Amino acid sequence: MKYLILGSSGFVAYHYIDFLIKQKNDHQIFCIDICDKQKIENVFYNSKNIQFFNASLLDRKALRKILIKTNPDFIIHLAAQSSVAFSWSHPYESFTNNIYCFLNLLEELKSLKSEAKVLLVGSSEEYGKVSSIDIPIKEKTLLNPLSPYAISRATQNQLAKIYSSAYGLNIICTRSFNHLGPNQSIKFVISSFVDQAIKIKLKLKKTFVCGNIELIRDFIDVRDVINAYECILKNGRVGETYNVCSGRGYKLKEVVDIIKKLLDVDFELTVDKSLLRPIDNEVIIGSNEKICAETEFKLQYFMQQSLSDMIEFQSNEILKKEERDVCWI
Amino acid sequence: MKYLILGSSGFVAYHYIDFLIKQKNDHQIFCIDICDKQKIENVFYNSKNIQFFNASLLDRKALRKILIKTNPDFIIHLAAQSSVAFSWSHPYESFTNNIYCFLNLLEELKSLKSEAKVLLVGSSEEYGKVSSIDIPIKEKTLLNPLSPYAISRATQNQLAKIYSSAYGLNIICTRSFNHLGPNQSIKFVISSFVDQAIKIKLKLKKTFVCGNIELIRDFIDVRDVINAYECILKNGRVGETYNVCSGRGYKLKEVVDIIKKLLDVDFELTVDKSLLRPIDNEVIIGSNEKICAETEFKLQYFMQQSLSDMIEFQSNEILKKEERDVCWI
Repeated sequence: MKYLILGSSGFVAYHYIDFLIKQKNDHQIFCIDICDKQKIENVFYNSKNIQFFNASLLDRKALRKILIKTNPDFIIHLAAQSSVAFSWSHPYESFTNNIYCFLNLLEELKSLKSEAKVLLVGSSEEYGKVSSIDIPIKEKTLLNPLSPYAISRATQNQLAKIYSSAYGLNIICTRSFNHLGPNQSIKFVISSFVDQAIKIKLKLKKTFVCGNIELIRDFIDVRDVINAYECILKNGRVGETYNVCSGRGYKLKEVVDIIKKLLDVDFELTVDKSLLRPIDNEVIIGSNEKICAETEFKLQYFMQQSLSDMIEFQSNEILKKEERDVCWI
Repeated sequence: MKYLILGSSGFVAYHYIDFLIKQKNDHQIFCIDICDKQKIENVFYNSKNIQFFNASLLDRKALRKILIKTNPDFIIHLAAQSSVAFSWSHPYESFTNNIYCFLNLLEELKSLKSEAKVLLVGSSEEYGKVSSIDIPIKEKTLLNPLSPYAISRATQNQLAKIYSSAYGLNIICTRSFNHLGPNQSIKFVISSFVDQAIKIKLKLKKTFVCGNIELIRDFIDVRDVINAYECILKNGRVGETYNVCSGRGYKLKEVVDIIKKLLDVDFELTVDKSLLRPIDNEVIIGSNEKICAETEFKLQYFMQQSLSDMIEFQSNEILKKEERDVCWI
């Protein structure tokens, strides 16, 4: 099949491309990103099945040409301005990148009468402030987004619905919850925990810094996320939205405890007040009832396994960097 | 008090300015519109209390200057691209006009640390497809917007909420239902009915054309709308949304029957299929429980009175036009 991945330089795209290459079904993979071509090609060893387009989705003409040239069966929309903090300081950019890029895609698919199946990857941030009686969060929960980013995502979701019903486009949406897994940027909470714990174990760092570790969040392994997206593309209903989540809540403190145990290391936790948010949900757990009922999706990774794989991956990265640093001296 | 009316050339703005002038409280009224100055000044006889600014809200610098110069107590946001049909053919313009104009206002109010009370006038279209168990529609009903216009309105509403809570802006939102009243454009259903019926009575027209007259809609007189907005500005809670509606559903057919009776005229109805929409709610009735409970709002106009006033106004307009036409011959 022909996959077109929009926003191909990120964490999820990395794992999606990895998954497709390993499938050995001779999938053709087309990638679009505003980042430099090198990034994709280096990671995937110049695989013959991958073709990369360096383009912005804000450039509607460029997008049209790529859509005509590639004629994809599946379009995976991962391109987004995805930082909540950035969206507060740059609300215009957040709206332009998330709404207008997606509108360009919709208008071109409409104009080309495309039958491609489109997966619009959204965010659990769309739910925003949720009352405790709505936990675990189902797709029908009233949206109460708390940031320009979350609003732009909710707007994308609504656009997907009306373009599906009005023009017969084949769009299916997700609201994806917190991810974890190997190769995640250490800007994210769990990979930051893993990074710090390894460095303490290796005596490269002394203090473990964190925000509010009493928060309970739903984490899903990125490899389960890819599996979920494939299941949705296969069996999901057009115009519908599916939560992509583990359905399991972990207190961040518990996650730190598992990491300590896996690494056989102990340390005190230092709370950095700058990491505390003024408004935050105490508990966010999603319900994956809908995706489980309507598709073949089943969770394959559990927290312990994910953390163990992250520790292995991140240890190697840290050691490689250390070796390089030693060589340079 | 100092009122700044954004989008001052429309139907509601006309009545709002009329109301403020009649109050004789020496309100200062500042108006912004992209339409020509003439339109406002002609209608209100160059009242000394009105100052008009010909500017686009997309011009953030111009907006900033006006906000600094006028330092309003109340800002009534009536500026919008408000046609559902136009939003389907011009979705970009719809989003730009509704979201970016409002974002400009929010960012400037934030930057100026303004304490002005802002009324964001939204639309019942935000509710979109509503199931019969949700009638009458309350503010907490799940939004299911069915057009780019409706989505852009829902997005504005969400932006108002987060800018109120994050930056302490004093924004209150409405979801306003169908309006009727004197001076409404005959593009709208009820004034079109009145216009056609008068012309048939005067033998200026033979056939009465309509769409689906089985639909039930909630109509509120524009003078009650203004009263509602004033009540909300006085007692409404910041960050909240209030339905502005009569809470009464009228089948369009019934409205035609009242018009026939008031005009003492009879005619057949001809259905124009081009006026039928592919997807439409059979029944839309809002609940005004919240505004009635939290403010001093009370309905003052009933359908018969509104129609009677519209007939008087529109008859005069038609007769004036006829006279002009006769002179020209």
